[in-house]
Amino acid sequence: MFKKVDHIGVAVSGLEEAIDFYTKMLGKPPEHIEEVADQKVRAAFFAVGETNLELLFPTSPESPIAKHLEKRGPGIHHICLEVRDIDARLAELKAKGVKLVDEVPRLGAHGKRIAFVHPKSTGGVLVELSEPVGDASHS
Amino acid sequence: MFKKVDHIGVAVSGLEEAIDFYTKMLGKPPEHIEEVADQKVRAAFFAVGETNLELLFPTSPESPIAKHLEKRGPGIHHICLEVRDIDARLAELKAKGVKLVDEVPRLGAHGKRIAFVHPKSTGGVLVELSEPVGDASHS
Repeated sequence: MFKKVDHIGVAVSGLEEAIDFYTKMLGKPPEHIEEVADQKVRAAFFAVGETNLELLFPTSPESPIAKHLEKRGPGIHHICLEVRDIDARLAELKAKGVKLVDEVPRLGAHGKRIAFVHPKSTGGVLVELSEPVGDASHS
Repeated sequence: MFKKVDHIGVAVSGLEEAIDFYTKMLGKPPEHIEEVADQKVRAAFFAVGETNLELLFPTSPESPIAKHLEKRGPGIHHICLEVRDIDARLAELKAKGVKLVDEVPRLGAHGKRIAFVHPKSTGGVLVELSEPVGDASHS
């Protein structure tokens, strides 16, 4: 049901500087850079195995990443786990008493259906669930 | 050179409680639980794809995890990237001016050779590098 760690989201206080560092460390430039309107961020993606490291820089003070930077400083913001049948997973979690930010999936980057689990339930980790595009297992 | 995200280390303020939650969320119990003397923690491991989620609970106030809990509360403590030829990677990073916690690899859990990169360089993310046991590529 949980297939992989899809990505690790890192809040950065300077995008160019962070891209430079990760390019240096990983020995390759980001696969791509894009604006994610939903989260009000500009994001740079580096693949490491089946997981992406996503550097997230706010494009607005209203971005959740701007708020994270203000409260906690730069660092890991969330992890995203790829699931099959996100509707069923959310229903199960809710039934088990897990606090959810999104009880119904919403549309995230790349047209994926996503939902966040509340960090109150997870011991301080903001966990995003995402279903691959075109996954018909929930139908 | 960077093969995968080997694990994500999560500092937890109660191990049983955290194991219960992740067992509920992931729909399976941890693969194993062990004491890691080097880090002064008791750790529970859940596999998600090629990555382990490691729940880390301090067994001593001297544990780096105890210090993290005190300063930052529960949440993600570090990420570990699996590399080939850790000696060469560390030499390269040092030459590029990246600040390292360990300039020479030390022995981590499961007999792996590991080293930490300083969060000052990485934009607030504590990054561990680890080389698989028996990887002869550094010889």
